[in-house]
Amino acid sequence: MSNLSIDADRLLRRLNDLGAIGRAADGRLSRLAASDADKHGRDQLVSWIEAAGLELAVDRVGNIFGVWAPDGINERPPLMIGSHIDTVIDAGIYDGCYGVLSGLEVILTLKTAGFIPSRPIVVVAFTNEEGVRFAPDMMGSLVYAGGLDANVALATIGTDGSRLGDELQRIGYAGDREPGFLKPHAYVELHIEQGPVLERDGIPLGAVENLQGISWQKVTIDGDANHAGTTPISMRRDAGHAAARVITFLRGRANASKTATVATVGCMEFQPNAINVIPSKATFTVDLRDPDEARLKEEEKALDRFLETLAADEGVSVSAERLARFEPVRFDDDIVAIIEAAAKARSLSCRRMTSGAGHDAQMMARIAPAAMIFVPSRAGISHNPKEFTAGRDLVAGANILLDVVKELTGER
Amino acid sequence: MSNLSIDADRLLRRLNDLGAIGRAADGRLSRLAASDADKHGRDQLVSWIEAAGLELAVDRVGNIFGVWAPDGINERPPLMIGSHIDTVIDAGIYDGCYGVLSGLEVILTLKTAGFIPSRPIVVVAFTNEEGVRFAPDMMGSLVYAGGLDANVALATIGTDGSRLGDELQRIGYAGDREPGFLKPHAYVELHIEQGPVLERDGIPLGAVENLQGISWQKVTIDGDANHAGTTPISMRRDAGHAAARVITFLRGRANASKTATVATVGCMEFQPNAINVIPSKATFTVDLRDPDEARLKEEEKALDRFLETLAADEGVSVSAERLARFEPVRFDDDIVAIIEAAAKARSLSCRRMTSGAGHDAQMMARIAPAAMIFVPSRAGISHNPKEFTAGRDLVAGANILLDVVKELTGER
Repeated sequence: MSNLSIDADRLLRRLNDLGAIGRAADGRLSRLAASDADKHGRDQLVSWIEAAGLELAVDRVGNIFGVWAPDGINERPPLMIGSHIDTVIDAGIYDGCYGVLSGLEVILTLKTAGFIPSRPIVVVAFTNEEGVRFAPDMMGSLVYAGGLDANVALATIGTDGSRLGDELQRIGYAGDREPGFLKPHAYVELHIEQGPVLERDGIPLGAVENLQGISWQKVTIDGDANHAGTTPISMRRDAGHAAARVITFLRGRANASKTATVATVGCMEFQPNAINVIPSKATFTVDLRDPDEARLKEEEKALDRFLETLAADEGVSVSAERLARFEPVRFDDDIVAIIEAAAKARSLSCRRMTSGAGHDAQMMARIAPAAMIFVPSRAGISHNPKEFTAGRDLVAGANILLDVVKELTGER
Repeated sequence: MSNLSIDADRLLRRLNDLGAIGRAADGRLSRLAASDADKHGRDQLVSWIEAAGLELAVDRVGNIFGVWAPDGINERPPLMIGSHIDTVIDAGIYDGCYGVLSGLEVILTLKTAGFIPSRPIVVVAFTNEEGVRFAPDMMGSLVYAGGLDANVALATIGTDGSRLGDELQRIGYAGDREPGFLKPHAYVELHIEQGPVLERDGIPLGAVENLQGISWQKVTIDGDANHAGTTPISMRRDAGHAAARVITFLRGRANASKTATVATVGCMEFQPNAINVIPSKATFTVDLRDPDEARLKEEEKALDRFLETLAADEGVSVSAERLARFEPVRFDDDIVAIIEAAAKARSLSCRRMTSGAGHDAQMMARIAPAAMIFVPSRAGISHNPKEFTAGRDLVAGANILLDVVKELTGER
């Protein structure tokens, strides 16, 4: 039993098969939540779940479950493993699908090997993780964890004017189970990193111990639109220069941070945006992330203080508006340690890391001990056809998931 | 003769009268070059020139001249004083008009007082100084100074598709004189500052000793559009951060400069301009100005060097494209000294200064000793209905022009 491994060929073949569903004539892959393409992807997953001899369940928001609950233990809280199979527009084939198909692969491997779990093992594919067609993202897991009422979620109107509930009915995935019907003992999600760290460090595995908190703000700086030639520097109220100082300030803070603080100014607009006029207005976004809530608050406060000083310094007025705020998520230390031990047992290097992106695991962490396993993403690229993880890394990640599942469901 | 002063009421009344021509029903003032409104403004000016008993001349590009050439001295090179009467869209009443009407007022005052000039005195209104309808700006004086062929200027197509030559014909101001037909002995232009310096310092008069050289560049920075959450700071190629560093670098240089160096980043664009994506591209303009050509070149070189360092530092690629380049203009020291002496004689404070904006005087400086006199602009505002100079300052400026003209044309 100790040398058990998943069927690498089957996993990679299924990843490619699922990745072939929802491709347009031009080769672009899109399986937006509750679309026809999503239905075809779901149908494929369901056929694999049923072929594996698992019990199929679908809840009211369309989350799909493949339940392996041998007699005698079927009343116990299950270990849940999975992710999502909806995609962004013009997607790659790994994001989400890798976690779901690996979960199924792990169960199939254990079942075939005659493993006797101490609790049910459930593979799950959550509805609408990407949030492209219906907002918010991570919707299926959010509802499942009790963070959003199912009826509210079903009433969501998509970017195309459709209603999620109607679309799930239409594609045959408005299930009868109440979200949350299985209270998990733990949740483990295997996912591509979607960032460049593992590749850079030449490490095949990440034991994800936490997930960045996110603070989004929109900052507006008002100055004076004076003549670029006739206005001495000392008399300027230059909103553009003030905005530039915010960018360099944020970078300085992030560089000095000992945690995985990141700060990004992604959107920027100058007004009047004329070559010979000093900008009277600069509007920009600030994206602050930190895995530690106290640190994230500290960064927000430091920015507030800087904006105050800046207003006085530059003779401008500054206002900031909160756009979004999510607290960091701490994953379960014990599971993270089990992931590390599993990697070590297979002589694979592994690093503890922070997830910079959002995942279903952060919602499931509200109702169960949870953690994630990351595998490298080439050049850190995702949400793009260039998304790629080497087969060797995909297989290694699935085997670690296998070992972690064995550890969490084996008899002790 | 030493206590001679212009007729303040007449000057201010005429400024208002000319400023009433070209007003739309909503009160906005626009007399774009060679438009119907410009024709009405020109007609008014011509009637005043003729009423003053001056000889009227119009050259092929529509420059208007009022010549006072008493017998006996009419072959001598004239002193030329003036500016322009075309305006921007939604203009104020002072820019340009003040210099032309003061020039006429000065001649009228001297003529009435029985002053006997040693050379002709000519008031001029140059065509299309603003360059709003037809490019380039300062066109009439540029042609007059030999910097642009008259036929090329006349063939210019405007923003509305019209041809300047046709429009001048249509409004009756395609004259018969060849531009440059009068070779000036000197040129003096009285103008509002269009900047905030005189008002700030509480000084009513500026003796303009030079005019900023201008260097316009467009800078493009290319980085990588990575995920704002998953990409560690150390692995970013953030075009937006690199652009911000250019802005703060330029400000640092300008602050450290001992000359009137100014640097402005007026236009800025980020791509993809998304809140959670590191900018892959930043495109912005750099407007550098300095009254000293060596210093301006030094600033350009310093920017070049900085962009090179930046590219290496930030892992981005940087390219710069020249959009425009004008050398600084040095005005005539002797005339500047005469302006200062005139102010002193009237017990008015006066400061030597640099013009940050372009003026017809810079073109005339190519063919004659030239200088300018500035009066304060409230809050530095021009090209705007809020453009304002107090009557007291307008009258003081015109009296200084009177004294300077006397000095430059009196018998010695």
